[in-house]
Amino acid sequence: MPRKRQQRRSVCPVACTLDVLGDKWTLLVIRDLLCGRSTFQEFLESPEGIATNILTDRLERLVGSGLVQTVPSTVRSDRHTYRLTDRGRALTPVLEAIRDWGLAHIPGTRARLKPPAAEA
Amino acid sequence: MPRKRQQRRSVCPVACTLDVLGDKWTLLVIRDLLCGRSTFQEFLESPEGIATNILTDRLERLVGSGLVQTVPSTVRSDRHTYRLTDRGRALTPVLEAIRDWGLAHIPGTRARLKPPAAEA
Repeated sequence: MPRKRQQRRSVCPVACTLDVLGDKWTLLVIRDLLCGRSTFQEFLESPEGIATNILTDRLERLVGSGLVQTVPSTVRSDRHTYRLTDRGRALTPVLEAIRDWGLAHIPGTRARLKPPAAEA
Repeated sequence: MPRKRQQRRSVCPVACTLDVLGDKWTLLVIRDLLCGRSTFQEFLESPEGIATNILTDRLERLVGSGLVQTVPSTVRSDRHTYRLTDRGRALTPVLEAIRDWGLAHIPGTRARLKPPAAEA
């Protein structure tokens, strides 16, 4: 399948990255994946309350842009789970910078995103 | 004027920060401010082509959330320019992480956002 041609108005890496990331829901799904969540149901259960149709759309976009891959479920053969690709996992510093700003500048926030190494 | 009460569904600093930042246009205006742009016209001239009404709205939100402040223009007394507050400037690592991901993962992108220290 030919890759969809990008409508690029700018060569700015910030603008181009934001075009890939889309809206905040995409970044929240990436956050969940970094936190170890991997199933559609787990993403739905996040406190922000993503709607089913938005989640379906954002997962499709994430897979389409090579940030996420599907993996056959080890629990149910008719299901699959989601996992970040290397390209997706490379967004960790972006999420960490967003987390750090929130912790420093928005009272009452508490960190949930931890890099995998820190969870061991 | 009483501050608008936040409708917070989550204490996650990533989610709360994304609520403050809103969509990609907000981050592109912050990028422009970090690059030294400061007037409405300069933001309009960025290659992404932000619409006038969206720019007006995002600047109002940025001022309202304390990320940007207005400063009387030294050129025209009936105009003002925009400047990041300390709270807004603290988003630099977020923009840098987004830029770095783009440079590494999106072919053809070229950096425009440079930290102020590197511009001297």
